[in-house]
Amino acid sequence: MTLTDALLLFLFVFLRPMFLCVFAGLSAAKLLKASGLSPVVLEARDRVGGRTFTARNKETKWVDLGGAYIGPTQNRIFRLAREYGIKTYKVNEQEKQVHYVKGKSYPFKGSFPPMWNPIVLLDFNNLWRTMDEMGTEIPREAPWRAPHAEEWDKMTMQELIDKVCWTSFVRLFVNVNVTSEPHEVSALWFLWYVKQCGGTMRIFSTTNGGQERKFQGGSSQISECMARELGDRVKLQSPVYRIDQTGDTVVVETLDKQTYTAKYVIVAVPPSLNLKMHFNPELPSLRNQLIHRVPMGSVIKCMVYYRENFWRKKGFCGSMVIEEEGSPIDLTLDDTKPDGTVPCIMGFILARKCRKLSELTREERRICEIYSRVLGSDEALHPVHYEEKNWCEEEYSGGCYTAYFPPGILTQYGKVLREPVGRLYFAGTETATEWSGYMEGAVEAGERAAREVMCAMGKIPRTQIWQTEPQCVDVPAFPFVTTFWERNLPSVGGLLKLMGVSTFLSAAAAVGLVACKKGLLPRS
Amino acid sequence: MTLTDALLLFLFVFLRPMFLCVFAGLSAAKLLKASGLSPVVLEARDRVGGRTFTARNKETKWVDLGGAYIGPTQNRIFRLAREYGIKTYKVNEQEKQVHYVKGKSYPFKGSFPPMWNPIVLLDFNNLWRTMDEMGTEIPREAPWRAPHAEEWDKMTMQELIDKVCWTSFVRLFVNVNVTSEPHEVSALWFLWYVKQCGGTMRIFSTTNGGQERKFQGGSSQISECMARELGDRVKLQSPVYRIDQTGDTVVVETLDKQTYTAKYVIVAVPPSLNLKMHFNPELPSLRNQLIHRVPMGSVIKCMVYYRENFWRKKGFCGSMVIEEEGSPIDLTLDDTKPDGTVPCIMGFILARKCRKLSELTREERRICEIYSRVLGSDEALHPVHYEEKNWCEEEYSGGCYTAYFPPGILTQYGKVLREPVGRLYFAGTETATEWSGYMEGAVEAGERAAREVMCAMGKIPRTQIWQTEPQCVDVPAFPFVTTFWERNLPSVGGLLKLMGVSTFLSAAAAVGLVACKKGLLPRS
Repeated sequence: MTLTDALLLFLFVFLRPMFLCVFAGLSAAKLLKASGLSPVVLEARDRVGGRTFTARNKETKWVDLGGAYIGPTQNRIFRLAREYGIKTYKVNEQEKQVHYVKGKSYPFKGSFPPMWNPIVLLDFNNLWRTMDEMGTEIPREAPWRAPHAEEWDKMTMQELIDKVCWTSFVRLFVNVNVTSEPHEVSALWFLWYVKQCGGTMRIFSTTNGGQERKFQGGSSQISECMARELGDRVKLQSPVYRIDQTGDTVVVETLDKQTYTAKYVIVAVPPSLNLKMHFNPELPSLRNQLIHRVPMGSVIKCMVYYRENFWRKKGFCGSMVIEEEGSPIDLTLDDTKPDGTVPCIMGFILARKCRKLSELTREERRICEIYSRVLGSDEALHPVHYEEKNWCEEEYSGGCYTAYFPPGILTQYGKVLREPVGRLYFAGTETATEWSGYMEGAVEAGERAAREVMCAMGKIPRTQIWQTEPQCVDVPAFPFVTTFWERNLPSVGGLLKLMGVSTFLSAAAAVGLVACKKGLLPRS
Repeated sequence: MTLTDALLLFLFVFLRPMFLCVFAGLSAAKLLKASGLSPVVLEARDRVGGRTFTARNKETKWVDLGGAYIGPTQNRIFRLAREYGIKTYKVNEQEKQVHYVKGKSYPFKGSFPPMWNPIVLLDFNNLWRTMDEMGTEIPREAPWRAPHAEEWDKMTMQELIDKVCWTSFVRLFVNVNVTSEPHEVSALWFLWYVKQCGGTMRIFSTTNGGQERKFQGGSSQISECMARELGDRVKLQSPVYRIDQTGDTVVVETLDKQTYTAKYVIVAVPPSLNLKMHFNPELPSLRNQLIHRVPMGSVIKCMVYYRENFWRKKGFCGSMVIEEEGSPIDLTLDDTKPDGTVPCIMGFILARKCRKLSELTREERRICEIYSRVLGSDEALHPVHYEEKNWCEEEYSGGCYTAYFPPGILTQYGKVLREPVGRLYFAGTETATEWSGYMEGAVEAGERAAREVMCAMGKIPRTQIWQTEPQCVDVPAFPFVTTFWERNLPSVGGLLKLMGVSTFLSAAAAVGLVACKKGLLPRS
């Protein structure tokens, strides 16, 4: 649910050799350097951070216009933050959140907006339970091996939703989590994505979930600290356009006319950005086609600044869940600094709305008007500052937060996602198995790819490539406890069946009773 | 249904200026040169032809391993062939075709295999009629403006099929026409694709359809003749990796370290291969995302050569429609030379089968075994030569025949498919409105883009950009005449309803009769 990590056009070199990426790339380079090797990181942009981007100016002090949120179970990124002394703080969720639907605001507390209509409640409860149950049978490291992989991959998420529930809210849930539409993504892929983030509650929650915290000072600091540690091994403004591994080494060329020679290369960019490079020899056919098939999501991150934190005074924490087709924004969170200064609302323009509104001006999008309606306050109409970033414009991201799999692709091409090609290894958050799509996934992927290279060099055994991460002591993860009712209430369909059966049983009992009274049944 | 045109990494220059593509690129350059301009064509490969590729060797004389088939209504490509004196010949369909299903061969004549079961016949008839009727409301130049565009684009073709029919054959129809799976493509896009080829009959037929003819000597000759005409304006082995239009001209750099400066550039590559280039300034956000979202289909074209044309002796023309999951090949056509020499069967490995079999050896694929079963002949087991081309391996195609649109993309991004970006114009068969995906579409697109540039230069008015093509006199198109029954037979659903209604009417009539006889009705 967050704009994620870095992983941009990068290349690490080591032993006069190298790589491609940002967050994943930097994580890989860091680990390799610590192991005594000499990586070089080739970054396409003029900054490190990739899909994270902390802007600094006097109006905002600092602001995360890209990946920002972190939470329990994202232990690798917390390990890095701790190492660099970067503090985290909790996103404000003290006061009430607001669910805006059919033109009305409903304040609430908790992970999901509550449903008062008992039928809707059953439907809603059944939806989350079904998604999580389906997730349990999907292997996080190989979703294409799930028992129902083929069947679920042939369906779009919209088709699955149509089978499972009536609740309109689920569209927003998909939009917010993967910045794409339910009819655009494979059901198998979406179920996998939610599962590998820890389930529907973990992925969507602020408290105890993926949006619990932010980095004090901004998320780019992690990349900046890693880059500082790597020194002049990091080459900025060096988009790679050619990778030649026809000889004994890999020869990499960048737009600034530099040539690098490496023993191994880690390509740590989103899969489809592999297309920015010309490969010699050509990639194997499945990989050559995979990289055409996994587009990046669509999101504009919008930050509206106010003189005062007026929503808190009204008892609202700043989190808004907005179900209205006419609203540009689907979800907001309070982005005020932890010391209470620089009051700000962060909002996402997502998926279809992002494409529709991309061509409008900031004013035409009328973001403040919807905030004013949802919060019931004219103060929302008078911002003092505005920042935004449209990630769809970025050539070296292609979109945010992450890549999605349209129907049919994961089962046909998934297995080559991180399969090495000669001396090329693949990182990037899309190749991760825990919090793929997030900064955490980028670190997992970068470190795994670095260990694959170390293994290829004979420095570590194959069994050490994949490593689990101990839990961060400062940010414990609490289990989401489900109630007896949440586990056992029927779905609406189940309820109807139950009512059918009980009507039948009642009728049968009544008939029996009458028959008995009338002496029509033999008595023993 | 054919492997198509060229359109590869190309760049035309004119007025010391230029372009990118193959078939479309060459067509554009040809027209521009004829108009007194000085185009340059930059081709990524070491040959022209792009997705057409005529191999020559002593075993085959010549063989089209890429786009090959042409037919009535493809008037632009016939015009070019005529200009260069390239003859066409009819694909052999003298004897009977074979439909192989559930392990049995059924010889037949005509465009589609006949269905004997009356229920299946109704279903089959209704399917084609429904697809063609839906097609009539889709504008060929702007499918995103169809009245039901949003609704149909949210569905995969599989979902539409599930709603309309039970006939298993339709999966093969999708596989053969667009080298992808029904659950991978948008229903709106597929309906548009069939429509802009002239409908279900025109696209799938050999006689009077898209596969009626081939070029004597091979399809690459068209590109070769155009390239000869352009002389040293065509630069081979010149993949473009950078396009800079920050100044008054466009500066283009190629992998062979050449820099070209142009007033205008026509990018005539498939949309997703735009990603091979680094753009300065970046592309607008919708185009930047579109090019991540339209993958190329999957096909291996397989040519099996025999000593003798044994199938004709058995009364078979060589066309096989094979419905069997275990068969690598779904469709074959006779590829014997028009003078009867070099007996050969052409077969396609398509979509899911292509991905599955890509990694096997030729022997492991067991193509001859299925031919032997379908034709009922041991002779099929003893080929004398074999040629194949797996288009999924090609870095500068990404797959064949053409790009497909997954659900949700055409309505959100379609409108920027050929929208110019500064001095960049877009060609490639994917941008065509008649026979897009075919050589014909490439010529349409190339010439249209050339005229867009001429219009930008003030040489022609805007009204002349789009031009219709007169019918080729040598290859007339005959309308597909539908019978009264084809137009009016009900669907299976319709039949059931009809039966319901008529049962009700009969019952009512019977009751009426009885009532009447018993004197229960008042008589006047």
